[in-house]
This record gives sequence, structure tokens and C-alpha cells, in this order.
Amino acid sequence: MKKIGIADTTFARYDMYSSAEDELNSQGTGFVIERYTVPGIKDLPIACQKLIGKGCDIVLALGMPGPEDIDKRCADQASRAILDVEIKHDVHILEVFVHEDEAGDLTELGELADKRTREHALNAYDLLYRPERLEKMAGTGQREGHPDVEYIRR
Amino acid sequence: MKKIGIADTTFARYDMYSSAEDELNSQGTGFVIERYTVPGIKDLPIACQKLIGKGCDIVLALGMPGPEDIDKRCADQASRAILDVEIKHDVHILEVFVHEDEAGDLTELGELADKRTREHALNAYDLLYRPERLEKMAGTGQREGHPDVEYIRR
Amino acid sequence: MKKIGIADTTFARYDMYSSAEDELNSQGTGFVIERYTVPGIKDLPIACQKLIGKGCDIVLALGMPGPEDIDKRCADQASRAILDVEIKHDVHILEVFVHEDEAGDLTELGELADKRTREHALNAYDLLYRPERLEKMAGTGQREGHPDVEYIRR
Amino acid sequence: MKKIGIADTTFARYDMYSSAEDELNSQGTGFVIERYTVPGIKDLPIACQKLIGKGCDIVLALGMPGPEDIDKRCADQASRAILDVEIKHDVHILEVFVHEDEAGDLTELGELADKRTREHALNAYDLLYRPERLEKMAGTGQREGHPDVEYIRR
Amino acid sequence: MKKIGIADTTFARYDMYSSAEDELNSQGTGFVIERYTVPGIKDLPIACQKLIGKGCDIVLALGMPGPEDIDKRCADQASRAILDVEIKHDVHILEVFVHEDEAGDLTELGELADKRTREHALNAYDLLYRPERLEKMAGTGQREGHPDVEYIRR
Repeated sequence: MKKIGIADTTFARYDMYSSAEDELNSQGTGFVIERYTVPGIKDLPIACQKLIGKGCDIVLALGMPGPEDIDKRCADQASRAILDVEIKHDVHILEVFVHEDEAGDLTELGELADKRTREHALNAYDLLYRPERLEKMAGTGQREGHPDVEYIRR
Repeated sequence: MKKIGIADTTFARYDMYSSAEDELNSQGTGFVIERYTVPGIKDLPIACQKLIGKGCDIVLALGMPGPEDIDKRCADQASRAILDVEIKHDVHILEVFVHEDEAGDLTELGELADKRTREHALNAYDLLYRPERLEKMAGTGQREGHPDVEYIRR
Repeated sequence: MKKIGIADTTFARYDMYSSAEDELNSQGTGFVIERYTVPGIKDLPIACQKLIGKGCDIVLALGMPGPEDIDKRCADQASRAILDVEIKHDVHILEVFVHEDEAGDLTELGELADKRTREHALNAYDLLYRPERLEKMAGTGQREGHPDVEYIRR
Repeated sequence: MKKIGIADTTFARYDMYSSAEDELNSQGTGFVIERYTVPGIKDLPIACQKLIGKGCDIVLALGMPGPEDIDKRCADQASRAILDVEIKHDVHILEVFVHEDEAGDLTELGELADKRTREHALNAYDLLYRPERLEKMAGTGQREGHPDVEYIRR
Repeated sequence: MKKIGIADTTFARYDMYSSAEDELNSQGTGFVIERYTVPGIKDLPIACQKLIGKGCDIVLALGMPGPEDIDKRCADQASRAILDVEIKHDVHILEVFVHEDEAGDLTELGELADKRTREHALNAYDLLYRPERLEKMAGTGQREGHPDVEYIRR
């Protein structure tokens, strides 16, 4: 039995957690989910660490940075600290950030958040249970949330 | 009995500490507050660490960066180091920064500082005593100091 | 028998792994290759650490950042965390990043990715088996992927 | 008997050390000063650490970054590493940086450097011997080197 | 007998190592030099750490970043990681970076690289054998590679 951690925020404008939970459950069984909700994006690194402290084998960090410059800087700092937590504990944390200005309106933003979260939940599942699936897709222009891009065949 | 740390600065133009103390006391009992005042925003990370060293279960880092580019850079560095302290000690530090150029005049700045500090004091209380309250608000566009924003209902 | 780690991504638009493997095999024997594929560039630092955990004596981190500003920032953060992993474990990790906007079209991008990967695979081989070769080339304007540049003779 | 460390540079254009020493001696007794001079601003973090290694209870890091973009970047990196040293050793390091472009001419620059250094030397003394003095000034817009600013009375 | 480490790169366009070696030998005896050549500037931090691992008492990190924005960012990351290595091991590493766009042509670049390297080699020697020499020059506007600047006499 594996444990998958999901950290999310009250700052986000979409319930990304439910997308991740639903996608994970659609992929298979053999895991339990542990959730940890924090106020904002800068609280995600410590939330991820606390989930690892509870025995999570992999963690999804879900956040939606705002459109202002200060929001971008906060997101960058959170990203950097998430990397620190990964390295400290040798555990994968998949950062799923959806920037508000990636979408034209609130509906589009919700669709993007749902899609990106699901695709990264799938990545988490693959890293945990079937890494050979990722190896087969190496160098093929995979994108999460947006359409995959053209790649160069050898 | 829990201990809540509050770090603040002589650089700030508003007594954010009293807002935090008042809000915490209005939420409940069962905690004591430990305070540590330092000169400027870059002294907050070490102040937070010293509060953790004194047994604080959670810390509020209160600061008011000035409007110049150098002030922004200092605030960014303080933020980054606060994240380091959180990860090192596995303790939440809620950063409450109020940027001088977020408000039109000094009165507005004071109101913003009071409101943001209170809302983060409430977040600290929730993280400590009722995390389920945060989980219920996940993905609902909560903002501290400013009005909450519209969110996407599933 | 030495072990060479290669981390790559599904985000990349070219199979850089095969270039590295082919080049290494063309240089000599006495090593095995361990591979680890992750979704994106920010997952490379932890992938490198996991390869080091499996006993790799040196690691190649292969990635292709996109052309947007956010892609550049992600790449910078990945670079920084790769440096952290190197220092933590005292193991060389050669970062092989090919930025999408370094090339005019997809074909050119593939050629650049192939060439840079090969030249860094050669660097890895030299660091491991013949460091005196690097010492002889010190200060001679070596470039990976692009033509070497003129240098100042003493 | 406490020990106060002072790190300074040959790059600076003013003897900040003497200002710090003079101010500290004017505040009281019961301490000795340990000095460490390094070439440039990026050497200050390791200088501070070496002073802490010699038993300093608090450290002043005195530097004068040049006016170019590269100088700013160097100063930012030094600042960041000074924060690391503080957190690693749980010792306050007061950063006293005077940027060359803060003043109109060399005389003004010297006056600013003298004033800022003295005010931070006083901060160091307060942190060490009378922290209650800082607590009383919390939120009152204190500035070092420049005139204090207006603050919001509750 | 002391050991001085020198890390350099194949990316550089000038043999900075020979300038450092020649200058050190002209200052005195009682030390041996250990050299470590790596491909690029981002490999310098790990190279410095490996030199420290071989017992070096001080290290010179010699590099020549290119003129592009990506080169500047790489240099910044290398600088930051060099600071990390210094702090981790409590050993001075003098960063000697010569940016390609500091000089008008290749000849001038070579002269600048030679001069800066020699002046930092002298700094390394002073830190190791005669720190009082640096203390006497504190606050006197020393510049490495370029002419020293005017300073403010007390």
C-alpha cells in the first residue's frame, strides 16, 4: 500500500484537489491519499514536507498563482523551496501550478486547472507504479494542461 | 498549551503585532504569544528561527517592505530565507508582508496592514487548532487583506 | 566498472538520451548506463539524486526548456537545484539544456540537441576517465553544441 | 563578556569599521570586537562565518556595492548567503550595505556610510543587551542612514 | 605546507590558470597548487568542493562567462553555488570571473583576465599568509582587474 500526498491552497480559484483525487482513483488502486490544505502558495513547501513526514511516497503540490508580478515572484520562491524539500527527503514532488494569466476567462482557467492537475496526477501514478511508461515517452514533447507539441523523430 | 511566535520590525510603519495579538486572543485560548522585534525585514528569518528555538509551534513574520526596487529585493530574500527556516525546522511560518505601494496613502496602508495581519493570524490559528476549516475553503479564492475573489464552482 | 546516470524528460522534443548513450559507447567501455525519465525539467534534480543513490559516478541531466519566460524561470530553478544535488553528494552532474529558441526550426533544434548532448557526454567521459584531456583544453574557448570560439594565446 | 564581530572589505570606499567601532564603544562596555577584512562583498558571508567560529555573539557585515548591475547582483548574492550563515549558526548578522548610487557625491556617500553603520551598530548593541528597546520602536518607521519616516499611530 | 586550489574551465578564452600560478609563485613559497579543470562555469562549484576535499586551504575559481543573457544567468548560479560550498566547508573561495563584455576586443579581454586573476591570486595569498595587509587596505576602494577608485579619507 503506497501513500500519495496532495497539498492544496485556499488561495486557488478552483478545487484542484478533486481533479487529482478523481484521476488517481481512475488509474488504479493500491494507494491511499493524504491531503493538506494551506492558505497560499508559499505555504506549499512546508505542507509537502509535512505530507512526506506522514509517510507519503510522492506528493502533488497544487497551486494557482495570481497574475501580478508579486504573485509570480511568490510562485518562483515556492517552486524553489519545493525543490529543496524534494532533495532533502529524496521524494518526488510534482508541482502543478496554474497561472491565472494562462487563461482568457474563469471558465477556461478552470478547464486548464482540471486538465493540468489530471495529467500530473497521471505522472505521479506513473512514477510510482510504471516508470517504463515515462521512459517510452521521453523526448516526445509531452505538455500538461496544453496540447502536446510536435517532436523530432530520430 | 501551544506557543505562537510573532516576529516584527522597527522598520514597519504600523504596529502589526497588536493586530495579530488582538485577533489571536479573539479566536480562543490555550496558547501563549512569544514576541521578537528586529530592525528590518532581512532580520525576520533569524528572528523566526529564534522563536522556534523557544518552542513556538507556529510563527507569524510581520513586515512592511518599502516601495523601492532595493526594498523588493530585500523582501524577496527575506521570504526565501523564511522558507528555509520553515523547512529546516518543519514549522509553519506565515509571512505577512504589506508592501508600501499596495496602498494609496498612509491611512489606507494602516488599514491594509491591520486587515492582512488579522486574516493571517486567523490562518495561523486554523493551522494549529482547526485545519479542517482550511480544507473546506480550499480552491475558493481566499485573499488576505484584500477582498476574496470569484472562484470556479465544480 | 563505473556507472553513468542519464536523466531525461518527456517534455523534451528530441530523444537526447540516445545521443548520449551512443556517444558514450563510442568513447570506450568499462561503464554501465542507468537511466531515469521524468516529466519535466524541474523533476531533473531529484532524478539526478536518485541516480546518484543508485551508485552513479557521474550524471548527465538532459532537458529542453520551452521558449516562454516561465520556461526560462523553470530552467533556472532546475539548474540551481542540480547544483545543490552536486554539492550535497560531491558528484558531477553535467547539465545539458537546449533552449527551444536557440534554433530556427525543429530540424535545427534536433541537430543542436544531438550535438550538445554528444559533446557533454564526451565531457562526462573525460571527467571520469581522462581529466588530463580537459586540463589541456583549459582556456581554449570550447563550446558545446555550437562551434568553439577564438581564444587568446599566451 | 560578549564578542561582536565586524567584517569589512577592501572594495569599500570608506572605512566603515571605524564608525562601527566608535559607535559600539560609545554605547557601553562588556564586549570585545573581533575584525575580519576580506577583498569584496561576496567574501563577507564566509568572513561572518569565520567570526562566528571565533565565538562572536553577533556580527556586522559592512560593504559598499558599486553602481553597476553586476555590483547589484553580487550584493544580492552576498545578502542571500549572509542569511544562510545566520540560519546555519542561529546568530544575528546585521547587513550594512551602502550602495554607491544612493549618494550624489563621494562626501555624501561617506556621510551616509558613517550614519548607516552607526545606526546598525546601535541595533547590534540593542539586540545583544537591550532587546526591549527594539520592541518599543516596533512599527515606528525606523530607517538606518536616512531620516526615519512617518508611521501610523493606532 | 599549505595547499592552494585552482579550478578553471575549457569554456574560458584565456589560460587564467597560468596567470594565477605565476602570481602565486612570485609572492612566496610554502604552498603547493592543486588544479582541477572542468567544462563550464556551472561545473566550478563542484570542482572547488573537490579541491577542498583534497585538502586545499583556499581556492581560486577562474571563469569567463559569455556575453549573452543566458551566460549571465549561468554565472549568477555558479556564484551562488560557490558561496554554498564556501559556507559548507568554511573555506574561502575567491571567485575570479571575467565577463566577455567587460572588454572591447579579445586582446583587451586577455589583459583584463590576466590582471584580475593576478590581483585575486594576491588576495588569496594575503588571506592565507598576511591578513593584516588586507585590514590595512580596508575601505580604500581596491578593484581587481580595473584601476582602484578614489576613496573617502576620514
